[in-house]
Amino acid sequence: MKVGIADTTFARIDMGRIAIDELRKLSGLKYERYTVPGIKDLPVAAKKLLDSGCDIVITLGWVGRTQKDLVSYLAMSVGLITVQILTGKHVIDVTVHEDEADDEKKLLEVAENRIREHVRNAVDLLLNPKRLQKLAGTGQRQGYPDVGPILK
Amino acid sequence: MKVGIADTTFARIDMGRIAIDELRKLSGLKYERYTVPGIKDLPVAAKKLLDSGCDIVITLGWVGRTQKDLVSYLAMSVGLITVQILTGKHVIDVTVHEDEADDEKKLLEVAENRIREHVRNAVDLLLNPKRLQKLAGTGQRQGYPDVGPILK
Amino acid sequence: MKVGIADTTFARIDMGRIAIDELRKLSGLKYERYTVPGIKDLPVAAKKLLDSGCDIVITLGWVGRTQKDLVSYLAMSVGLITVQILTGKHVIDVTVHEDEADDEKKLLEVAENRIREHVRNAVDLLLNPKRLQKLAGTGQRQGYPDVGPILK
Amino acid sequence: MKVGIADTTFARIDMGRIAIDELRKLSGLKYERYTVPGIKDLPVAAKKLLDSGCDIVITLGWVGRTQKDLVSYLAMSVGLITVQILTGKHVIDVTVHEDEADDEKKLLEVAENRIREHVRNAVDLLLNPKRLQKLAGTGQRQGYPDVGPILK
Amino acid sequence: MKVGIADTTFARIDMGRIAIDELRKLSGLKYERYTVPGIKDLPVAAKKLLDSGCDIVITLGWVGRTQKDLVSYLAMSVGLITVQILTGKHVIDVTVHEDEADDEKKLLEVAENRIREHVRNAVDLLLNPKRLQKLAGTGQRQGYPDVGPILK
Repeated sequence: MKVGIADTTFARIDMGRIAIDELRKLSGLKYERYTVPGIKDLPVAAKKLLDSGCDIVITLGWVGRTQKDLVSYLAMSVGLITVQILTGKHVIDVTVHEDEADDEKKLLEVAENRIREHVRNAVDLLLNPKRLQKLAGTGQRQGYPDVGPILK
Repeated sequence: MKVGIADTTFARIDMGRIAIDELRKLSGLKYERYTVPGIKDLPVAAKKLLDSGCDIVITLGWVGRTQKDLVSYLAMSVGLITVQILTGKHVIDVTVHEDEADDEKKLLEVAENRIREHVRNAVDLLLNPKRLQKLAGTGQRQGYPDVGPILK
Repeated sequence: MKVGIADTTFARIDMGRIAIDELRKLSGLKYERYTVPGIKDLPVAAKKLLDSGCDIVITLGWVGRTQKDLVSYLAMSVGLITVQILTGKHVIDVTVHEDEADDEKKLLEVAENRIREHVRNAVDLLLNPKRLQKLAGTGQRQGYPDVGPILK
Repeated sequence: MKVGIADTTFARIDMGRIAIDELRKLSGLKYERYTVPGIKDLPVAAKKLLDSGCDIVITLGWVGRTQKDLVSYLAMSVGLITVQILTGKHVIDVTVHEDEADDEKKLLEVAENRIREHVRNAVDLLLNPKRLQKLAGTGQRQGYPDVGPILK
Repeated sequence: MKVGIADTTFARIDMGRIAIDELRKLSGLKYERYTVPGIKDLPVAAKKLLDSGCDIVITLGWVGRTQKDLVSYLAMSVGLITVQILTGKHVIDVTVHEDEADDEKKLLEVAENRIREHVRNAVDLLLNPKRLQKLAGTGQRQGYPDVGPILK
């Protein structure tokens, strides 16, 4: 089995490197990395990785602060979902929005944590889907602390 | 016949468990459950459940409070509708938006009620579509009290 | 020839009944009715009606007042257009937005008038497309009085 | 070769008539006209015209002033682009938004000019694509005066 | 190998000429140019260029200042991503938004720089994908100075 990792030159953090690092910690899965310019290039990158034999893809996007960036994020999201529907395979989208934090250090922390947690999700979807089922409804968050379930 | 149930680890309530509980109360239908990280993973989850033999799928999504979350909700909705068009089968989408209530207890109540009512809708679509036709235009709501028809 | 009529239990008016009443007044066309819970279920309902032999479908949607409802309306609209493109057949969408009138009586009036006028449109598309061509550019409205053409 | 012309009864100007008039002035091309109720019916109208042998289609839409109308315009636009991608043929979309002018006389002028200029574009795409290439980057506008290129 | 270049008559700069100039500086790749009226015509232009043998396409769009223009940009973006998913080939979208600068001279500068940098990206995707991988996460921008990576 092989994991595709698609990242961008637009991002301000080497998101692909972090994803690969986490993937190696968690599993012996092979991977294929593909870097594109920006988020609107990620859907076809995911499609190409799936076509070249990947069983799942992790896309790593970095989104700017403007309304135009949010519109591009919407187009990317619709595209990534279309790729999944057409191939029947998961594409786990890890998106960091630049306006999530005012502070670069905080943004770095959010991004790294989000990437590592979503790599774990991708590995579980491939190898251990029962772990995700155990976590159903428990308020898992990626990038921030889990919020936990609402208790009766 | 088999019902697919797709839920998320992002949700703060075990929505899948409630759906299964209601399904058992209403019918002897078999089910298959599939848990994914978040709402943008639900369209492919629905597609996979339909491909593995489900006759209908219930997706259980939990949406955050920000404009980004609403954009993700739109992408998910377009994707779920695409899955249905391509397969010719229903995917009943149960979405809870975190900003529907300020109070966790109220949110829990809305969510549980919405899930149970939509499971009923899904069962009726499969087994008893005439019941839905009798309720046409009667202002049914899921999660809140029915508003009822406008009377002449 | 057969007309599909898809309506919802969410609506506060029995839109399907009005559509069938108007269809009978205007033509001897057969019809098939299919009721679903809400507007996001209408695209697959239309697809199923076309697959079961309908030559045209009229969808009858009722949309709430919130921004989330408008987002759902967008997803539904994209879906209904996709169904039409894939099948090459018309789906006439009759949508009533709850915020079109503050007054229930007025809303009822708008809805009934809109349904009846769109049933006429659907019948003409099937049986008498030249009538629509004669009305081209004449400012026809459904639910409100026609605004008429702009005169030189 | 044949040009499809799709227009609506919603429009307040006989857009189809103007388009046909311009087409006759510019070329001896055959045409087929198809009138539908409103803008959300235009994508399937374009698809049907292409399926019946048209080499290009001109759609003529008239959009109301509300946010709901803008949402419908988005759904129509996505649909028209999908039709083009699936068929590999151009659909030239001529849209007039009612809020482009407060004054009916001005709106009529904008609409007529926009239609005539886009008919010219459609004819050029079919018969004389080199003319468009000569105009590349020259700030052409349809409905308003050309703004011209930015000069160094 | 061949590069498709699609541009518009709406743009106020001869974006196609700049792209071709840069392509010649960087490579001996053949190209095919196709000019269309506006941005909503770019997705089918890209599809036609890919169908006629191009291995990658660069689309060059110019977007006006209004909310309607942003909606059209969204429709175009969804369409360009769909073309890529269906063909498995990249379409590098170079968009200039008129409201990015108040000053025409600045806008010209942003546009020219953005085009040249994205032509470089397209050439690298075809001939030298490893260069992009080396730049992953380094905050590359097109049209503005690179922002660089966030350093720990």
